[in-house]
Amino acid sequence: MPLVRITARDSRSNAALDSLGDAVHTALVETLGVPPDDRFQIRARVPAEELVADPQYLGIDRRDPVIVEISLRAGRTVEMKRAFYARVVELADVRPEDVTIVLNENGPADWSFGNGIAQYAT
Amino acid sequence: MPLVRITARDSRSNAALDSLGDAVHTALVETLGVPPDDRFQIRARVPAEELVADPQYLGIDRRDPVIVEISLRAGRTVEMKRAFYARVVELADVRPEDVTIVLNENGPADWSFGNGIAQYAT
Amino acid sequence: MPLVRITARDSRSNAALDSLGDAVHTALVETLGVPPDDRFQIRARVPAEELVADPQYLGIDRRDPVIVEISLRAGRTVEMKRAFYARVVELADVRPEDVTIVLNENGPADWSFGNGIAQYAT
Repeated sequence: MPLVRITARDSRSNAALDSLGDAVHTALVETLGVPPDDRFQIRARVPAEELVADPQYLGIDRRDPVIVEISLRAGRTVEMKRAFYARVVELADVRPEDVTIVLNENGPADWSFGNGIAQYAT
Repeated sequence: MPLVRITARDSRSNAALDSLGDAVHTALVETLGVPPDDRFQIRARVPAEELVADPQYLGIDRRDPVIVEISLRAGRTVEMKRAFYARVVELADVRPEDVTIVLNENGPADWSFGNGIAQYAT
Repeated sequence: MPLVRITARDSRSNAALDSLGDAVHTALVETLGVPPDDRFQIRARVPAEELVADPQYLGIDRRDPVIVEISLRAGRTVEMKRAFYARVVELADVRPEDVTIVLNENGPADWSFGNGIAQYAT
């Protein structure tokens, strides 16, 4: 269910994006109860000027920022989200300062995984 | 009002994306009451490695996945959303298994369609 | 905190996107109370056929549309949002008719700005 969108600068390789995608997915499985085969990701490597992140906001030293946006069903607790963020930077081969994550929650009827069916709706 | 973002692999042509965009828009009009001229879409064709979708999640045989993300105002029922998903795959010239759709709802004050005005806010 | 995504056609230059990014950020600071150094933006210039916007929806004469999507924490009033939209088109070096803006709200625990911490969660 989660749909993950990862945007990085093209200073990072495709392999680095693969690795970051793996880290995010593993963290989703371990901390938010996502099924291992529930993996949907869109990744983009963009010119540096197209990804703007303040280099010091909140006192964090960002050098080569990556932005991870995730749509997921509502229902996770604050503690689960905290565990998720921590696990991503633990697993990822990226400076922890460089990883910004944003979640957007929706509902069970807001997903169709193929065949025109709302598989999560009851 | 809906803002539609369609991401496909570059194995699909621009014409195929046009056609899928038409299908999504027609389904929005027919099943969710969207005005015919309320059409805002962003489409992207990306290298295969940048669009990851599990080939078997929920037992659905995905081969050349496309992901359709839609921002729209809250207020549609589950039944309307079901009808929308079904109509998209009926109209689209794409294998039904390949179409994943995700909705994100917001409110009337969350839209400005030009001139710096929140046209839907009351 | 806000994450801003700006999509324009490649008829506009990188410099024009920079300028539009500046306008959106200044408007966020002035009207929605965003800290000046809280700036996170992703920008894209795409082929014209990849950005579809009806040229007359709601009677607005769109010629070279740009779409601004913003994720931000819930809590702004309708009046604040109205002021934001108005200020964007006032500051931007873009025809006011061409600027479509969409907001998506989330919660304080939905943001991590680095180091795997949910900085806004309490």
